[in-house]
Amino acid sequence: MKTVQFPPREQWVTLCRRPSIQAENLTDKVADILQQVRTQGDKAVYQLIEKYDKASLDNLKVSNQELCNAIGQVDEQLKAAIKVAYTNIKKFHESQQTPEAVVETSPGVSCWRKSKPIEKVGLYIPGGTAPLFSTLLMLGIPAQIAGCKQIVLCTPCNADGVVNPVILYTASFLGITEIYKIGGAQAIAAFAYGTETVPKVYKIFGPGNQFVTKAKELVSSQGTAIDMPAGPSEVLVIADKNADADFVAADLLSQAEHGTDSQVVLVSDNEAILNKVQQAIVAQTKELPRRELVEQTLTNSLVIQLNNIDECIELSNVYAPEHLILAVDNFEQYTDAIVNAGSVFLGKYACESAGDYASGTNHTLPTNGYATSYSGVSLDSFVKKITFQTITAAGIQQLGPTIEIMAAAEQLVAHKNAVTIRLKKLNNEQ
Amino acid sequence: MKTVQFPPREQWVTLCRRPSIQAENLTDKVADILQQVRTQGDKAVYQLIEKYDKASLDNLKVSNQELCNAIGQVDEQLKAAIKVAYTNIKKFHESQQTPEAVVETSPGVSCWRKSKPIEKVGLYIPGGTAPLFSTLLMLGIPAQIAGCKQIVLCTPCNADGVVNPVILYTASFLGITEIYKIGGAQAIAAFAYGTETVPKVYKIFGPGNQFVTKAKELVSSQGTAIDMPAGPSEVLVIADKNADADFVAADLLSQAEHGTDSQVVLVSDNEAILNKVQQAIVAQTKELPRRELVEQTLTNSLVIQLNNIDECIELSNVYAPEHLILAVDNFEQYTDAIVNAGSVFLGKYACESAGDYASGTNHTLPTNGYATSYSGVSLDSFVKKITFQTITAAGIQQLGPTIEIMAAAEQLVAHKNAVTIRLKKLNNEQ
Repeated sequence: MKTVQFPPREQWVTLCRRPSIQAENLTDKVADILQQVRTQGDKAVYQLIEKYDKASLDNLKVSNQELCNAIGQVDEQLKAAIKVAYTNIKKFHESQQTPEAVVETSPGVSCWRKSKPIEKVGLYIPGGTAPLFSTLLMLGIPAQIAGCKQIVLCTPCNADGVVNPVILYTASFLGITEIYKIGGAQAIAAFAYGTETVPKVYKIFGPGNQFVTKAKELVSSQGTAIDMPAGPSEVLVIADKNADADFVAADLLSQAEHGTDSQVVLVSDNEAILNKVQQAIVAQTKELPRRELVEQTLTNSLVIQLNNIDECIELSNVYAPEHLILAVDNFEQYTDAIVNAGSVFLGKYACESAGDYASGTNHTLPTNGYATSYSGVSLDSFVKKITFQTITAAGIQQLGPTIEIMAAAEQLVAHKNAVTIRLKKLNNEQ
Repeated sequence: MKTVQFPPREQWVTLCRRPSIQAENLTDKVADILQQVRTQGDKAVYQLIEKYDKASLDNLKVSNQELCNAIGQVDEQLKAAIKVAYTNIKKFHESQQTPEAVVETSPGVSCWRKSKPIEKVGLYIPGGTAPLFSTLLMLGIPAQIAGCKQIVLCTPCNADGVVNPVILYTASFLGITEIYKIGGAQAIAAFAYGTETVPKVYKIFGPGNQFVTKAKELVSSQGTAIDMPAGPSEVLVIADKNADADFVAADLLSQAEHGTDSQVVLVSDNEAILNKVQQAIVAQTKELPRRELVEQTLTNSLVIQLNNIDECIELSNVYAPEHLILAVDNFEQYTDAIVNAGSVFLGKYACESAGDYASGTNHTLPTNGYATSYSGVSLDSFVKKITFQTITAAGIQQLGPTIEIMAAAEQLVAHKNAVTIRLKKLNNEQ
């Protein structure tokens, strides 16, 4: 880990910049996949699955039989854990429902907002060695609460055409039964354009590799909404002199195991704790199965010493971390100063893993500094808030002249006229 | 207007497609402007202002003297109207504040969300003949309520280097004093990258021509957030047999005067009212100063007859209009069925102009079918909602095993370890 002591403020922006990753020709490659699916539909999807997943499928859709088989393959302890996580995530996301009150902005003029579900949403869950069923919970639960009519899942299969049973079990547990064995950019393309088999959706959610995130970026500029722009996962931990070095080290390592493009940042006003945490990292890393990956990630990572905890918070606001852990006493006195972060973990026992899996908060969060302007996924991500208004005759009579004056000043005579014609008719009726 | 009677459902999607507009080489031209500003900063901005606005400026920033002069040039009646609109818009957007409650998702595990302002926002207001001071109200008021620390305005000047006084008055009324005389794609570039004079912002809001909207799309894929993707303005009116044909015609025309790329759609289950509205349109159009523009817009527009009002609502949901006017009796019975729309105007007197200017709802709304997945601008657009959590020792002891089982199933051993290490230490302490 690169250690920086008391960096001057003018260096903070540079210090907080994420390591850049630029895959060659990525845009061209992904645009080509999108174009294939757009023009050839299912045929292109089957070909791309053969090419990338080495699977030769008869059917893109996961069958009921496959779903039933999967349920039998998941052990009961894991099923129980998923149920606990489900309950907490559901409880927290249900609390985000906002019954919008009618506001009488002026006499006879009533305005309100109403949440309406996005009717068709596509959830993408990557495959690979680790089946991210937790992400399926994080996306599927708010989609369900929102009342999305069609929730479609795409996730890759292995070379035998089999989807990870825990993914299928979790989907089935959530009542999601429209599941396609499609991964990578071709899944995003299928969601965005629709194929003979896969329905076109209005918004796409979920993480993925560089192909997936580039595909999401491209279809988003063509009109399909996406959850948020993506980047590698990251955590920033602020530790004070009383922090538990073992806990801090474990939290940093849990982020570091995500991949070599992840970044972990440790900030403190206390040199002793910085040293202790680094020693604990060395000790704990030895025990990890993904040791080499973790060690490589740590070379991208930062240890920063500053003058006091207030300054640590200020630096964190410049960094705008996806995950922020405050391993400090009296964390209450610092929460108001936090401006840019995705999700914040306060105190000794609120480890990032809790929010990743089961405490109830969402783990789909803004990375790469996007926490300056984006929120994490929430119930809001699955609804639109439509405004409604009613105006009484007396209401338009009172507000009408204001509208006429403003429309005239913007030289929009027909806008003005829509009011004038109503006022005239009302005057004639009186 | 093109009239379609009882179109079969399978034609609805095609029928609801917007007229396509594709400017040649637009992306290349705009990318070039962005690149100039990114690499040369202010120098490029001055050159682009000379080229496009024919103005030779000494200073990009509007001076206090200019602001003061503008205040004197706006007539008192307009100032009073702006104040009325301000009060209503403020009241409605203040009602969107949500104090987030702390949720104890399981014993000892507390989660909550907190709204934090996006610190730096850029508002773009186009120039041209009509000074859109109403849009400045619609963006500036929620930015203020949210508590955005830096609210920066870009708006073009005329060839004499002068910005429309009503824009300057409105900005000053809102307490926005950081105003730059920059229009077009160069304004968006200045917001996204920052220059020697213009600060870089985190999110850009506001309408504009094709150059501006393309620039917003491009910087958005590079990491600067934008309010929403843009398209030409549009209205869909559903009228029943008792609708006032003059009112409906006036509402359709107020949309039609926005520009030839706008679209207006009239839907009814009653042929007589469709005919009456069209006659009223002919009569009212004669009186409009923008007559030719309006007539051209109407050639893009649609009149659709269906079997009943329920079906009209269903078609509207397929169209997903920016503005939806329900000029029907008993509109209450139809509001629940509305799923895709930006802003809905209910009944005889709730004309679109009211929402455009002064009733309180926002007029920055999703066009081009984006109402399927996007909300209009609201207070939400100017904040991020950060999640926080605390977990007690007893809380992690109870929830910890769930996290361990899930992390293990995702093969994320370090994630599991962050919990295990805490549980072990707690057990040792007991």
